[in-house]
Amino acid sequence: MGSAQLIGLDWGTSSLRAYLFDDLGHLSAQREASAGIQSITDGRFREAFESLCADWLEAWPSAPVIASGMIGSRQGWKEAAYLPTPAGFAEIASRLLPVDELAGRRFRIVPGVSTVSAGGMHDVIRGEETQVFGALARLGSADLTVVLPGTHSKWVRVQQRRIVAFRTYLTGELFSVLAKHSILGRLFASQPPPAQGADAAFADGLARAAADPAGITSLLFSVRAEGLFGRYEPHSLPSYLSGLLIGAEVAHALADRTIGLRQDPLVLAGSEELIDRYRVALSLQGVSALPVAGAPAADGLLAIARAARLASPSPRELP
Amino acid sequence: MGSAQLIGLDWGTSSLRAYLFDDLGHLSAQREASAGIQSITDGRFREAFESLCADWLEAWPSAPVIASGMIGSRQGWKEAAYLPTPAGFAEIASRLLPVDELAGRRFRIVPGVSTVSAGGMHDVIRGEETQVFGALARLGSADLTVVLPGTHSKWVRVQQRRIVAFRTYLTGELFSVLAKHSILGRLFASQPPPAQGADAAFADGLARAAADPAGITSLLFSVRAEGLFGRYEPHSLPSYLSGLLIGAEVAHALADRTIGLRQDPLVLAGSEELIDRYRVALSLQGVSALPVAGAPAADGLLAIARAARLASPSPRELP
Repeated sequence: MGSAQLIGLDWGTSSLRAYLFDDLGHLSAQREASAGIQSITDGRFREAFESLCADWLEAWPSAPVIASGMIGSRQGWKEAAYLPTPAGFAEIASRLLPVDELAGRRFRIVPGVSTVSAGGMHDVIRGEETQVFGALARLGSADLTVVLPGTHSKWVRVQQRRIVAFRTYLTGELFSVLAKHSILGRLFASQPPPAQGADAAFADGLARAAADPAGITSLLFSVRAEGLFGRYEPHSLPSYLSGLLIGAEVAHALADRTIGLRQDPLVLAGSEELIDRYRVALSLQGVSALPVAGAPAADGLLAIARAARLASPSPRELP
Repeated sequence: MGSAQLIGLDWGTSSLRAYLFDDLGHLSAQREASAGIQSITDGRFREAFESLCADWLEAWPSAPVIASGMIGSRQGWKEAAYLPTPAGFAEIASRLLPVDELAGRRFRIVPGVSTVSAGGMHDVIRGEETQVFGALARLGSADLTVVLPGTHSKWVRVQQRRIVAFRTYLTGELFSVLAKHSILGRLFASQPPPAQGADAAFADGLARAAADPAGITSLLFSVRAEGLFGRYEPHSLPSYLSGLLIGAEVAHALADRTIGLRQDPLVLAGSEELIDRYRVALSLQGVSALPVAGAPAADGLLAIARAARLASPSPRELP
């Protein structure tokens, strides 16, 4: 094994991903366990971490650890209070939460970020802020919007390299609960869709939601009605539902004055499949977006650790 | 017992309600069982019906039966194909579906109604059409919109006493699946809400959704964020969610050119609690609506039976 200066943990609800960074900041190893916080009983977080990273801990007894995600929530190891917007590298680095020393090893949790809209409405992110900082570490732009599709899709507005506003959409979770627990899912086929019909159904859903985003709670019922009338095959109904939900999200977010400014770059971070879906939805609105290069969560953990002097600066920042 | 000329069944997914009408068309008895179609196994619909109404059947061996609701769906006793809009008394009376003769007794199922929007989107109702005809039997207006809040809220547009268009909102089912199966419900308290805070939270939800109905899939996440920040007590969070969903529905429906014409009367049919909620939501938009008098489902079954000459005409229609 070579040198190592930092262990990064992307520790969410359903998984724990660990990254090992060498002295130059290169990712030298990574591994994953299903030890998300929802699977941890009796507060045995330390044991889950030490079990996944035992050999790293033995080989580099003084390498610090930085963790982000739901591990810092009320249900996690230790609650890291939300940092309010605007939040840049300096603010977040100054608010890392120390966890009890682990045999002399520093262990820090990245706080989530909170914001309040002009209408006085709260919103929160926890974990995604790290991906945004990871994107910023890669990109030249100081002003951009980062879209992070997922269970809770986040549209995060960055100005002067600080998170200034964001908005969450329940898109992924709506898809999941409607497919599993509502009348809409009853017509779904259990096999995966044949690609062609599914793509057309997805595009149809996008177009209908884009034309009438305020009607989304009504459009959702059309998943059942169109299924009854055979407009879409049972195999394609999930794609139609996905199109409706993503279409409503994208149409609304692009029109939102806080997050949807179109003159700045729009970048996407997430799974390849979701990025593809969002690019199709955005292109329908005449907007292009590129995936963030690199591994945003790992890049963000390193970048925040560097800003907090838990890790040595990037070689290009050296004098 | 007096005379009887008709048995009406309002037979839905979760319950079976039976009505007995005398020779003048007055409701002389009613009863209810939890024998909704989802609880019937091995197609034992006849047994469920005969069990609930045994004494009526014995006392009036020739009284015909008219049934509406999910009993006419693919999962019901016999599928009654949807009647397309425009659908008035004459159309629906001519399309009653006969079920196998029950010892010489006529048994008819009321079909659901289907419509296609200008955008080519299908929508369906099954059971609510009967309530609409019940409202029409009571009301003088030939042109109105009937709102039927519930698991699937229906806004039904009537012109010249015919159903010409309608739109379904998934409002009630969204509330239910989000409360039970999503992250939003995790902060809910299990006890019933103290009324005052809940009313304010409901009003807040209505106002926020009315101001931004296209953002509803994002506003939904605020149930969690506002809960985390303590803006609403856990007791009041369900009311806030209800306000968001009803607010988005009402704002969209009133703006919909097909169903939301404001110059004609708007009437509400449903449970007292839901009617109260919708009246608050409508009044926020400057619209008033009155509950339909009578029992719309029972009234509708009788009115359709009369139109089909299964029952004798109303005394006021006699020469």
